[in-house]
Amino acid sequence: MTSNRLIIFDTTLRDGEQSPGAAMTKEEKLRVARQLERLGVDVIEAGFAAASPGDFDAISSIASIIKDSTICSLARANEKDIRRAGEAIKAANRGRVHTFIATSPIHMQYKLRMSEDQVIEAAVKAIKIAREYTDDVEFSAEDAIRSEVPFLVRIFDEVIKAGAKTINVPDTVGYSTPELIYERFKTLLEQVPNSDQVIWSAHCHNDLGMAVANSLAAVRGGARQVECTINGLGERAGNAALEEIVMATRVRRDIYDVTTNIRTEEIVPSSRLVSTITGYVVQPNKAIVGANAFAHESGIHQDGILKHRETYEIMRAEDVGWKTNKLTLGKLSGRAAFRARLDELGIGIESDEHLNELFARFKDLADRKSEIFDEDLHALVAGHQGSDVIKRFELVELEVTSKTGQTPRAHLVLKIDGKDMPVSQSGSGPVDATFKAIEVLAKSGSSLELYQVNAITSGTDSQGEVAVRLNQNGRIVTGQGADTDIVIASAKAYLDALNWLTTEGKANPQTEEVM
Amino acid sequence: MTSNRLIIFDTTLRDGEQSPGAAMTKEEKLRVARQLERLGVDVIEAGFAAASPGDFDAISSIASIIKDSTICSLARANEKDIRRAGEAIKAANRGRVHTFIATSPIHMQYKLRMSEDQVIEAAVKAIKIAREYTDDVEFSAEDAIRSEVPFLVRIFDEVIKAGAKTINVPDTVGYSTPELIYERFKTLLEQVPNSDQVIWSAHCHNDLGMAVANSLAAVRGGARQVECTINGLGERAGNAALEEIVMATRVRRDIYDVTTNIRTEEIVPSSRLVSTITGYVVQPNKAIVGANAFAHESGIHQDGILKHRETYEIMRAEDVGWKTNKLTLGKLSGRAAFRARLDELGIGIESDEHLNELFARFKDLADRKSEIFDEDLHALVAGHQGSDVIKRFELVELEVTSKTGQTPRAHLVLKIDGKDMPVSQSGSGPVDATFKAIEVLAKSGSSLELYQVNAITSGTDSQGEVAVRLNQNGRIVTGQGADTDIVIASAKAYLDALNWLTTEGKANPQTEEVM
Repeated sequence: MTSNRLIIFDTTLRDGEQSPGAAMTKEEKLRVARQLERLGVDVIEAGFAAASPGDFDAISSIASIIKDSTICSLARANEKDIRRAGEAIKAANRGRVHTFIATSPIHMQYKLRMSEDQVIEAAVKAIKIAREYTDDVEFSAEDAIRSEVPFLVRIFDEVIKAGAKTINVPDTVGYSTPELIYERFKTLLEQVPNSDQVIWSAHCHNDLGMAVANSLAAVRGGARQVECTINGLGERAGNAALEEIVMATRVRRDIYDVTTNIRTEEIVPSSRLVSTITGYVVQPNKAIVGANAFAHESGIHQDGILKHRETYEIMRAEDVGWKTNKLTLGKLSGRAAFRARLDELGIGIESDEHLNELFARFKDLADRKSEIFDEDLHALVAGHQGSDVIKRFELVELEVTSKTGQTPRAHLVLKIDGKDMPVSQSGSGPVDATFKAIEVLAKSGSSLELYQVNAITSGTDSQGEVAVRLNQNGRIVTGQGADTDIVIASAKAYLDALNWLTTEGKANPQTEEVM
Repeated sequence: MTSNRLIIFDTTLRDGEQSPGAAMTKEEKLRVARQLERLGVDVIEAGFAAASPGDFDAISSIASIIKDSTICSLARANEKDIRRAGEAIKAANRGRVHTFIATSPIHMQYKLRMSEDQVIEAAVKAIKIAREYTDDVEFSAEDAIRSEVPFLVRIFDEVIKAGAKTINVPDTVGYSTPELIYERFKTLLEQVPNSDQVIWSAHCHNDLGMAVANSLAAVRGGARQVECTINGLGERAGNAALEEIVMATRVRRDIYDVTTNIRTEEIVPSSRLVSTITGYVVQPNKAIVGANAFAHESGIHQDGILKHRETYEIMRAEDVGWKTNKLTLGKLSGRAAFRARLDELGIGIESDEHLNELFARFKDLADRKSEIFDEDLHALVAGHQGSDVIKRFELVELEVTSKTGQTPRAHLVLKIDGKDMPVSQSGSGPVDATFKAIEVLAKSGSSLELYQVNAITSGTDSQGEVAVRLNQNGRIVTGQGADTDIVIASAKAYLDALNWLTTEGKANPQTEEVM
């Protein structure tokens, strides 16, 4: 049943979220899921239900609001995991359980301490339980690229008999090359009995920079599902980038001969949303979604290129959603226009109170910034994920002066557990002084792992969006803050991170690395 | 003569520098060249001699100080370009002239307006003139991947007869796939007469995310030189990343069966230097050199992974130079230690006066920051590239207060053309107020294209390194400033950019896009 339809399986919310500090709140996951649905993703892997109650809750919330995409939960090959996954996807229009077990000698010996027969038995049992919840069951042989072909053929034969409909062949450690993975898929499709009754899937990591080329080589070898993430987010060097796979199959249709359901003009908005929420920047020279990917368009030689576009251009910027920065709202925009734009952006409003608070923040921002772009609205909402986090720490007042030749001293008032606390501290810069002052009161003992500022839009009155990543004894969280004042944004981001440290369920949900 | 030695041709200083705002000063280029030599690069493409007097000067300076690597200049296939390139590399131990002309129908018709015969004639003539200067002549058929094979065979036959020693087959627009480029090299090596007498070279762009896989497929097809850049810097989505190509050939020696001269432990230091100088960030999920590429090493499951490293790891972080952040100097370090460390980092000191000024800045920094890392030293020097830029604008004083609920107002004194000028201006944040104040005096009329802050090292007392990219009627420059105070660093970066706008020879040297 090899058709030319390529299924796009997005795992930004599962494998992507396993990146250090990329953990998302339920609200953030819902926003990403809505955008993925708008993008036209076939399958959204929404999380790993058994990992935590928070993950379970996020998956079931996504399952209940997303209509067009299949919603999937990951599960190890054990009864408890499978049942949690099955429960989490219950509300979905189309729900999938994705179960996995390692099949490489090194993983079976050192991680699982199981024999080949035990691994097969566990996999078959997992599939059968999963089928109690849904017909749409996917099986992954973790570290398949370093597994032995005869064993893969055996286990895939058994799980297909047990009812698996999708067979995933992950390159867990990013070790494959295009020619090898092509051969691997060819061989499996030939040798596994009834291979034409299932969809074959690739899941490639980017450790050697070849995740996209490997995914596409797998497609040439017969894969009809690719597992990928927005911006190539994911553990270590990340997963295959959705945007690159999709555009390569479009631009080189002559080679790959597959079609996807992706609405490509939603690619850049999706990239920006994920980057904003996770605090993971996209480098300017990133293919498709990097700021320079189409930079000749705005450069000196625009005229020449426009005349004979194809001399240097194989796709058009507007096809992948570059054009953005369109002015959306201003100082005089009313509540109705504001709400309508949030709806268009897929930002859900929980209540009138929530809308009122966002609108007040919008008006405050519009007073300070002449033009409000979509990115500003995303930042505005990101700074107000009220429902999940426990707001132990709040900023009441801040004052700090930058002056040449003088050590900066920050004066802050924080509300901690409802009580106003003043503090002063000097530091090597206004941000350093501010962070040190906060730590005097918070005593979190955490170390600063990342401090990052992005100008959300261009122009000098842009908001600064600051990401602060803290590590408290191995628990890593990312806090965010946006403000036209970079020092205030930094304080907000630091306090946000501290609040996440005091909140259960943020931080990476995974308890071990998978796939 | 297909050996298993793969020549690494680095074009960070030429193709990389063509990225918008990535233009480097001569001093910066020398620092990068020294690091590339330390890295073990075989060929350094140092620039495009005919593009500007500044480019010529940078190439000849690099040629006179680099001993181990071949120094190369690009040249269009015309006499003037070739002679400039030949002169520029004169001082080199080993010098190469690299000439190119487009060979695809679309480029010949629309860009060159030349017939096939005219293109061949120009190429042959160019090679012959280049051979007057050096035996080491490289020829590139621009847009070769979209060129017709019979024409490529004809032109390559002729240029080999004329004396070209390296034949480069660029994928100028990033259009190829691994299987296609493999076939292209196979075919050319079979059909071009005397193909075994020259080195075949690949030059791949990353528009579809496959530059590295394509370069490696070319190697399988017989290429023994790859043209690449540090961090994959380069126009649009960039070139193939040197670090990924090198590590893929090492990790998958079983597939590619080639060796390079690269000292892999210099990869991360090279990446950081180029990122610092160009202001182009490396995303955390970038392979090999991204902050997360080996992130499990510092994560929660360190123990498990250390026990059975290979379960999730195919190479070791220390092999590519991750370990850095080693403390190098502190408050009590003397001039001798300071100078020795600069020497080790390959930072050239022009004069005693230069050393004195750098040492004073170092002492000032050490007063404010407890531990000084290599990155701090790079930033220190980057903030003092005294020789090239005309310092029309200097910061004398700055004072601006961040206070919640209050519009920030910046008070500055700038020295402009030697005269102190005070100015005050309010803005939406302290940085905005500062930039607006500067513009009141400078009246540059430029637009802010990029504002970026990197914490140079971790820890709250890290220096902030700010990159500001300005666009003045299509002329794009990047200014840099480092300070423990982020607002002061921002002011310095903005003034640095303004100074570059008033200095000839910064801004991208290319007058047209090439390869």
